Order: sequence, then structure tokens, then C-alpha cells
Amino acid sequence: MEEVKKIPDIVVRRLPLYLRTLQRMLDEKRKVTSSQELGERSGFSAAQIRKDLSQYGEFGKQGTGYNVKFLFEKLCQILKVDQVWDIAVIGAGDIGSAIVRYQGFTNRGFRVAMIFDNDTNKIGTKINGFTVYDSSYMREKIQESRIKIAMIAVPADHAQEVADQLVEAGVKAILNYAPISLNLPPEIRVQYIDPVIHLQRMTYYL
Amino acid sequence: MEEVKKIPDIVVRRLPLYLRTLQRMLDEKRKVTSSQELGERSGFSAAQIRKDLSQYGEFGKQGTGYNVKFLFEKLCQILKVDQVWDIAVIGAGDIGSAIVRYQGFTNRGFRVAMIFDNDTNKIGTKINGFTVYDSSYMREKIQESRIKIAMIAVPADHAQEVADQLVEAGVKAILNYAPISLNLPPEIRVQYIDPVIHLQRMTYYL
Repeated sequence: MEEVKKIPDIVVRRLPLYLRTLQRMLDEKRKVTSSQELGERSGFSAAQIRKDLSQYGEFGKQGTGYNVKFLFEKLCQILKVDQVWDIAVIGAGDIGSAIVRYQGFTNRGFRVAMIFDNDTNKIGTKINGFTVYDSSYMREKIQESRIKIAMIAVPADHAQEVADQLVEAGVKAILNYAPISLNLPPEIRVQYIDPVIHLQRMTYYL
Repeated sequence: MEEVKKIPDIVVRRLPLYLRTLQRMLDEKRKVTSSQELGERSGFSAAQIRKDLSQYGEFGKQGTGYNVKFLFEKLCQILKVDQVWDIAVIGAGDIGSAIVRYQGFTNRGFRVAMIFDNDTNKIGTKINGFTVYDSSYMREKIQESRIKIAMIAVPADHAQEVADQLVEAGVKAILNYAPISLNLPPEIRVQYIDPVIHLQRMTYYL
């Protein structure tokens, strides 16, 4: 593979969707695929797939298609999920609990490592085998464990304050479930999950 | 307001984020804001905000900024959330249950109307006051209630089959929590929530 150039974020955003499709093909014991099929199953055009992948070098041969396992492994490397990342979850409410119980992280590069809450009724209880830690120790514990990724699942009013502590603890990427935009230093990556935002992006067209 | 032209989807995608920020300003009893402030709090530049909003007409006066309530109401109209949309939730597992209990829909244009599952252990039980219905009656009940929006929270292997039934039932917009891309007729809107996809969009940069 060529050395990785600066790739537009819009391309990077699509790669995980290709990877997910390839993972399903592997589960189905598929050996070879085409840009056509990969596109159809990921929701993009064959031309888009070819163009995006060509940013990273040559993955398929003209006429013979892509080797599923090879392309899967290359995309894992590119997205840096050929390793397993530990995640800290902040907030042990409905969403935080669902995250801790979520089976979908397995084999996709992530695992929940710890969960925190500030509610004395929740601290010390267990969720899916994880003891809920007191968020007073959040900074310390995350720092000790060198965790780089956190998910925020606290009420909107507390999310900024939690995010600030996570940054101090050395977290570099935050997935925020609280329905509020965070102010963070430019080097910190942030992604948002807010179902209402997604719903409103559809009602516009209804 | 001028008649609405065909606006690029990339602009439409940002509007709910502006709306969310305006809603918080209203909660804070703010009367007036600027494109500068709205940008900072939504994570965009002032120029971006002005450009996006100008697609829909004139919302602010040079030098006096935007009236928060007026702009909020206009955006609600544009995104069609000046009404309340009923939602059907399919799947009463951890995610489906968390959705049904989620407080964040209130005042943002949506309400959960019904939840379905195919597990006899779940059918008939209550979640946050909602009785879990047998998914055998899904098509019929959704059709009767003229529900246009559904959320899929079933395992990946069942998601496509559920989506097909939803389309037959008249659903026009699907928010899919199952980690799989759906094949749907072009007139059906679909959005995805898959935390792993969001995480992988960040690990690339770590």
C-alpha cells in the first residue's frame, strides 16, 4: 500500500460503512466481491467505491474484483481497528446501560472497559458484569488506564463539564449521546448520536 | 419567507443542529442571537450559518442579529417539526427500550406511539407505559394509525425483513439502529445510528 495521503473526511466517513459490509460478507464466507456488489450492499455507487478505495492504493485487479478478506484487513488497518480500543462510558442511565450491554462492539475494534456515574444509587451496582464507578474518580481512572475514547451518556446540562474532564484525562475521541454540541480543543475528535437530529433530517423531506 | 427551492442535503443536515442550539437558547430565555454565537454553539462558522439560513429567506437584520424565537419557529416549519410525529419502534431489547424511555423527544417534534417485538416473553409486557405489541400485527397497526416514521432496533439479521414490512405499511422514514445497510425504494428516507461507525470515523485520526 502507498503511504497514506491526506484524504478528505467525506471519504473517511464512508470507509466504516464499506468495512461493515465486508464483515458481513466474511460472516457469509464470501471470498470475492465487486465494487458493484459492495456498492449495492453499502448504499453507494460502484464508481464511488472504486474512487474511494483508490485513495489508498490498489486493492483489486481489473476484472477479478476484490478479495474480501484482504480488503477487510486493509480497511481495518486504515481505520486503526486492527487493534481493540478500550472505551469509558460516562453515565449509567438507560443509554449508558444499553451501550455497556451492546453486543455489537465485538470484533469491530472496541470494547467497553469501564462505566461511571455520579448517582450514589448507581455507583457500585453492576451492569453486564461492570461495576459502576463513582465519576469523582473518572479523571484518575481513565488516565491510569490510558483510555483514549469515551462515550458521554449524561444529561445535556452535564455533558460539557464531563467532556472537559475527559479531555484533561487524556481522552482524544468522544462519542456524545447528550443532545448538545460540545466546545472542545480542535485536536479532540467528536461525533454525535442524537436520534432527534436524524429524525429531523428526514421529516424535512416528508 | 420565500418559496422553498431545492436545497442541498448537506445544508438540510445542518439545520437540526441549529434548531437544537436555538431550543437551548429559548430554554435560557434568550431573546436575540448572532450568527457568530449560533455558530460557536453549534460547531460551525458564522459565515456558514448565514449562508445556510439565507437559502430560506431573510431571518435577521444586518447589525441586530436573529430573534431566537422567530428563527426557532421558522426552522421548526422548514423541518416540519411544528407538528408532532408519531413513531413506531420495532424491537423491545435494550435499545428499543431505551428509545421508548427516552425523554429527549419531548418538544422536538416526535413521540413514541407504539413498540413491537416478536419475542413471546416480551409481548404484552410494559415499557414506560407502552404495551409491547406482537410484531405479527405490525403492518396492520402501523397502517391503521397512519404512522410514517419507524425506528428499527432488531438484530441485523432481521432488519431488512422488518424494513420491507414497514414500507408495505406505509412508513416513509426509517431510523435504523441495526448495524446493516438497508435496501429500500428510493422514495423512502433512511438514517442510521451505529455507534461503531461513529467510533471508526474517529479512530482513523488517532
